[in-house]
Amino acid sequence: MSDRFAQRLERAAAEAAEAGFAAVIVAPFPDLRYLTGYDPPPLERLTLLVLRPGSDPVLIVPALERPLALASPVGPRLEVLGWADGDDPYEAAAAVLPGEGRIAVGDRTWATHLLGLQWRRPKVGFLPASQVIWRLRAVKDDQELATLARAGRAADETFRQTCALPFEGRREEEVAADLRRLLVENGHGRADFWIVASGPNSASPHHAPGRRTIRAGDAVVLDFGGELGGYYSDTTRTVVVGEPPGGFVEVYDLVRESQEAAFRAVRPGVAAQDVDRAAREVIGSAGFGDRFFHRTGHGIGLDVHEPPYLVEGNASVLEPGMTFSIEPGIYLDGRFGVRIEDIVAVTDDGAKRLNRSSRDLKIVR
Amino acid sequence: MSDRFAQRLERAAAEAAEAGFAAVIVAPFPDLRYLTGYDPPPLERLTLLVLRPGSDPVLIVPALERPLALASPVGPRLEVLGWADGDDPYEAAAAVLPGEGRIAVGDRTWATHLLGLQWRRPKVGFLPASQVIWRLRAVKDDQELATLARAGRAADETFRQTCALPFEGRREEEVAADLRRLLVENGHGRADFWIVASGPNSASPHHAPGRRTIRAGDAVVLDFGGELGGYYSDTTRTVVVGEPPGGFVEVYDLVRESQEAAFRAVRPGVAAQDVDRAAREVIGSAGFGDRFFHRTGHGIGLDVHEPPYLVEGNASVLEPGMTFSIEPGIYLDGRFGVRIEDIVAVTDDGAKRLNRSSRDLKIVR
Repeated sequence: MSDRFAQRLERAAAEAAEAGFAAVIVAPFPDLRYLTGYDPPPLERLTLLVLRPGSDPVLIVPALERPLALASPVGPRLEVLGWADGDDPYEAAAAVLPGEGRIAVGDRTWATHLLGLQWRRPKVGFLPASQVIWRLRAVKDDQELATLARAGRAADETFRQTCALPFEGRREEEVAADLRRLLVENGHGRADFWIVASGPNSASPHHAPGRRTIRAGDAVVLDFGGELGGYYSDTTRTVVVGEPPGGFVEVYDLVRESQEAAFRAVRPGVAAQDVDRAAREVIGSAGFGDRFFHRTGHGIGLDVHEPPYLVEGNASVLEPGMTFSIEPGIYLDGRFGVRIEDIVAVTDDGAKRLNRSSRDLKIVR
Repeated sequence: MSDRFAQRLERAAAEAAEAGFAAVIVAPFPDLRYLTGYDPPPLERLTLLVLRPGSDPVLIVPALERPLALASPVGPRLEVLGWADGDDPYEAAAAVLPGEGRIAVGDRTWATHLLGLQWRRPKVGFLPASQVIWRLRAVKDDQELATLARAGRAADETFRQTCALPFEGRREEEVAADLRRLLVENGHGRADFWIVASGPNSASPHHAPGRRTIRAGDAVVLDFGGELGGYYSDTTRTVVVGEPPGGFVEVYDLVRESQEAAFRAVRPGVAAQDVDRAAREVIGSAGFGDRFFHRTGHGIGLDVHEPPYLVEGNASVLEPGMTFSIEPGIYLDGRFGVRIEDIVAVTDDGAKRLNRSSRDLKIVR
């Protein structure tokens, strides 16, 4: 087992013990990958890592994947228990789970698996593992930061090449196909999302690119990202085809100023919600507060959305190495929307952007 | 709302009522897509369809995705409730959930969402929704069968083209990259898995393709598939590079005979476990029973693995329109493994294969 994963397993067990948990259980993916380097597909057959403070970690796997698990970075050092098709995997897991107390369960574990375990451990209180281990995953090491920066550069290059393509007269879904292709051509292992929202559609933050033909005078929100080396990129730029529509430039400048204000608010010791407040202050004081109706950002790493969330009510304190999006927006129904998003990393005394595409208004053709 | 989705929603509510459930709740994906045609990315923000027998369906969505939900096939006819970032989505959901009785929850719903709902509905018994609605999804309509057949043909063409490429002297991961590329070139929207297990690695059923260089005399298990129009392909063939290793041909013929016996056992009214028994009988009576240590197959549709599972203990009765894999295998540690897998559909009086690659032993170079 590499030192990296050994350290993560130890820290997770220690954080669980400190929080009073009898065990942490995680399934694929991505908690299991983070803690062990083992990354089988998340499917209906139960794979479960059981961490109990003071005991050795146990990995429960389908029998047919036992060779795969043993060949993984953790294989030689963990106890790997196989269960066979037709057996009850929850019975196998229950055999190594505490019978009472609290167990932290990985956020993305399937409901069917959790229900199977709850049924066999009725006296246990199950709680989301993110409450225990989110900070562990949220603070990236140098290797993780380097991978996220590579993903950011691949997104930058994708944006540059997309802007060189024609927009006017093409359908949203055609531009989206280009985005998707370029994400991979620029180094992503997989494109993950490719929002192209044009004209009035740009007022819908998560618009699905469709058959609308893009016209001169349209604002176009491009929100795209993919997976690179296990980590994600996530960038948004709002471009205009030719002449901007009436009122657009003022709104654009406001979103840009909001994004910059939030960026400048980031440093160690600041609460996540204070970054949200900094973004919201700019937009709210200009009278568009109710048109910025989503949080300012989300953590990013092995998940495209993960803690910390930059949202009112989240008093979690930022630390060096945390990475998240800053993406304020203003959405005017029936007219246009604007969103500008960068991924940033908290440094020792502030923040740096991991993607560098210009935030100047870009006119496309 | 199209008739298709209206019918599915009605049938799901009816099946839930008949099974004594107060509600069915499903999140993205794929239950939500199946029931409503709405298919947002499954993320940390709660999206939840609530079906209560005798009441209209309610869809709970993040506020920023409300326009997206309203524009979906179900949008105009469902009650769509938005919750805003910073609000408690589980509180919003609890407002429309029954306070007691049993609730069926979609199998792949995230644990963190289920825990949030359980916390607010402590008197409710939550159970996996697959127990209620699996048969609904398992019986495919003509449109679904046509899509699965298209996916099967794309997998066939992928196999044909892969066999024309050189194996000897290349690494597993290089052949895997070709498989992945060819799955997409032949019409899949996304490649999903691309197992290339050579030589002794072929004895590990879910081997992850690695840096091993393929040599003359190797058996190579190719297990590959992808998503096409929302549905999956999943085909396995075992090829040999040049001259087969000692004992290989006998084992290959046995697996082929086992696969054929299972295929012939499929018809309406037969229990899922009887197909498993038919496959196992052939291999067991030849003395290799303990080397066939996984189930014979799994249902396939919007999920690559879904009910019905062809496994001892599953007495569920097969019906026309059900689709699943038949994939017996024999794995000899340190030597080689063989697996042959087709997707089949239950017809009115038997079964038909949805992929047609020859099961004759294929020699590659």
